[in-house]
Amino acid sequence: MTAEGHYDVLITNGLVLTLEPGDAPLAGGFVAVRDGRIVEVGSMSESPVEAGAGEILDVSGGLVMPGLVNAHTHAAMTLFRGLADDLPLMAWLEEHIFPAEAAQVDENLVYWGAKLACAEMLLSGTTCFADGYFFEDQAARAVQETGMRAVLGQGVLDFPAPGVPDPAENIAAAREFIERWRGVSPLIRPSIFCHSPYTCSPETLVRGKNLARDLGVLFQIHAAETRSETAQVLAQRGLTPIRYLDSLGILDRDTLAVHCVHLDDEEIDILAERGTPAAVCVESQMKLASGVARVPEMSARGVRLALGTDGPASNNDLNLLGEVRSLALFFKAATLDPTVLPAAQVLSLAGPGGARALGWGDESGTLRPGMRADLIVLDLKRPHLQPLYNPYSHLVYACTGREIAHVLVEGRVLVRHGRLTTVDVEETLAKVREIAAGIRK
Amino acid sequence: MTAEGHYDVLITNGLVLTLEPGDAPLAGGFVAVRDGRIVEVGSMSESPVEAGAGEILDVSGGLVMPGLVNAHTHAAMTLFRGLADDLPLMAWLEEHIFPAEAAQVDENLVYWGAKLACAEMLLSGTTCFADGYFFEDQAARAVQETGMRAVLGQGVLDFPAPGVPDPAENIAAAREFIERWRGVSPLIRPSIFCHSPYTCSPETLVRGKNLARDLGVLFQIHAAETRSETAQVLAQRGLTPIRYLDSLGILDRDTLAVHCVHLDDEEIDILAERGTPAAVCVESQMKLASGVARVPEMSARGVRLALGTDGPASNNDLNLLGEVRSLALFFKAATLDPTVLPAAQVLSLAGPGGARALGWGDESGTLRPGMRADLIVLDLKRPHLQPLYNPYSHLVYACTGREIAHVLVEGRVLVRHGRLTTVDVEETLAKVREIAAGIRK
Repeated sequence: MTAEGHYDVLITNGLVLTLEPGDAPLAGGFVAVRDGRIVEVGSMSESPVEAGAGEILDVSGGLVMPGLVNAHTHAAMTLFRGLADDLPLMAWLEEHIFPAEAAQVDENLVYWGAKLACAEMLLSGTTCFADGYFFEDQAARAVQETGMRAVLGQGVLDFPAPGVPDPAENIAAAREFIERWRGVSPLIRPSIFCHSPYTCSPETLVRGKNLARDLGVLFQIHAAETRSETAQVLAQRGLTPIRYLDSLGILDRDTLAVHCVHLDDEEIDILAERGTPAAVCVESQMKLASGVARVPEMSARGVRLALGTDGPASNNDLNLLGEVRSLALFFKAATLDPTVLPAAQVLSLAGPGGARALGWGDESGTLRPGMRADLIVLDLKRPHLQPLYNPYSHLVYACTGREIAHVLVEGRVLVRHGRLTTVDVEETLAKVREIAAGIRK
Repeated sequence: MTAEGHYDVLITNGLVLTLEPGDAPLAGGFVAVRDGRIVEVGSMSESPVEAGAGEILDVSGGLVMPGLVNAHTHAAMTLFRGLADDLPLMAWLEEHIFPAEAAQVDENLVYWGAKLACAEMLLSGTTCFADGYFFEDQAARAVQETGMRAVLGQGVLDFPAPGVPDPAENIAAAREFIERWRGVSPLIRPSIFCHSPYTCSPETLVRGKNLARDLGVLFQIHAAETRSETAQVLAQRGLTPIRYLDSLGILDRDTLAVHCVHLDDEEIDILAERGTPAAVCVESQMKLASGVARVPEMSARGVRLALGTDGPASNNDLNLLGEVRSLALFFKAATLDPTVLPAAQVLSLAGPGGARALGWGDESGTLRPGMRADLIVLDLKRPHLQPLYNPYSHLVYACTGREIAHVLVEGRVLVRHGRLTTVDVEETLAKVREIAAGIRK
């Protein structure tokens, strides 16, 4: 331990999982944070200079790990959580979700819906997320106020959309959003979210990708989510969705392909060769019964993988520890092989995998000195988490996501002893209930 | 509201789900409890006489519903939670679980393991469970002290078992256990748990079932869990497990058949015709990759269904709201039909379905005047549970099981404001850690 020892935050007496490849769990560990970054990770027996820290969080046996990364959601759709479930996909979308969105989505809904989503994500250990929706300035405002890290994509469709009634303006609206938010905060990266290969023309897709390239931002797109999408794109464009996007030159390391359910082996190889990250949303895919992305094969063939929750209308939560459990359990059951997707592997998708997919892999996603201090502490002293033989196993097979004691983003404490420091929960819930009353009508 | 109005406990201002067929959710409701039973359920506008109640729990918008029923576990195996995961089934069992049990299971482990399990179950909304293990007197002692409702089965194997070194004594040991605990408490029903068709001889199975009939108790047995079991029973007995058990005369309404994964249509019909309840353990079946019981078909063909967690070595928790979500999601994904197993249906399996399977269906499982007051209250004022359009949907698709505010069993408050009233959690965790330190060696 160095003598210089002045830290902004010092986390002591934790069971530290760095999620760096090869690192074993470190019992009795500390993590020291200064200027938003991790400056030291080590054993308490190396005695960190506690006197020099601005804040000491003695977590007494709690588990310290990187914050989780939700690689795909539509945050404002918290307002539609549980509005319609257990329905056929097209009835759900066309009779419930699209009409509700057309009638209800405005700046107020997006702002409060995104704020509620940030509260939920922080309280379940997520420090960073990728969003795609409309009125995205309002999502950015909510994210900025809460202090989370996010990639925020302005939605693009070739038909009238909330806030963009004239589809001819969709790329211009995205450009304006990106230009407004570029460089405003180290925590927020604006992005463009072209909804899908079947709701955007090839011209729109190419213009959107060119805009993303020009401005150096992430291009997000849903792709190959349902069988009917694949059939439709094949009929209209002569190619399946991944091949079609590749033919347009859209697949590269800075395109985030979301869902990627209905892929053949060659399409998996295309994603791997282009370095295109895939965001898989297991619980949404299961619940909507559209099929589940072939995660074991995608992983084996070298696709860059991350996990998302999808929007809360189709999940119905924003809880990544739920996703890792569902992912691990589903593929063991589907393959009849209990060794598929072991606990440590699925966890790495939810942390470092997500950070890499969103372009933050060099700066966040593991607990290594020099990385941005995005980390969470879980309280393990609960009946359902004792005894403890293997922390990876507990995180995937026993934790619920509601054991979060502390959350730091870029070194700032956003959850302390289970309480949000930057969100007025009472006010947020009151606003949300008010908006929901209108939706219910 | 009657004028008599003296209650032991009055729960006010709740969103009440009775889980009685045909009842709609009742907002602004109350539940009145006297002498361990529900005496009235109604709307606050009918103004219950609050002054007359011994304890008033104003749950201000919280959700009130029947306690959940865990129809299969091995409670003491909390001590083996996370000891070995992501392994082939036989390696997991033969190299890890069986040796750990042979070396470690004693009265002390069963007592503290069961106490930890009771704490975990109460804190996640379970009021009643069915157990099968060894040294079952110790489980009964733990259950009696916590005040839960349970069916407790002394384990029977045809080889040396913890506490029963001579298998010739296995049925006698079960008889003694049952006779010791019959009539001791209205909350505890002793039972016999013959492990399986491949670990008990036909003679043992018949003697065990006759004992259960003689003493009027539930007969529990694992059946048709794995493909190898089915192959082995078929080779040895000339019949698949369910047909074999039926040929021995074992299948009736008082036999609880656990797992029931590998059944053909005719075997499903046998269970339905005999009225034999099946306890399905979805997460355990997924995690061990042994296949998942055909719940939609079993339900359609009239099998009495209940849900269990299985033991915490193979789940790794005792959380029934996790089970209902995994059940609903798995079958939507497996059938590619999002309408399969809607939220209200899977919930009814976890509450009234479980109570009926364990023989308590006339007395517990729904909120109806006259029923025993086994009920739970969930706090909905959390970011992940707002807004609220459909409480069934939230319970299955958004709750984690860690939202439990209050738990009553037979009218007694066992969890109040999230804290256990009958378990010393600190002491229990300390004892469990001490035992686990020995297991770790």
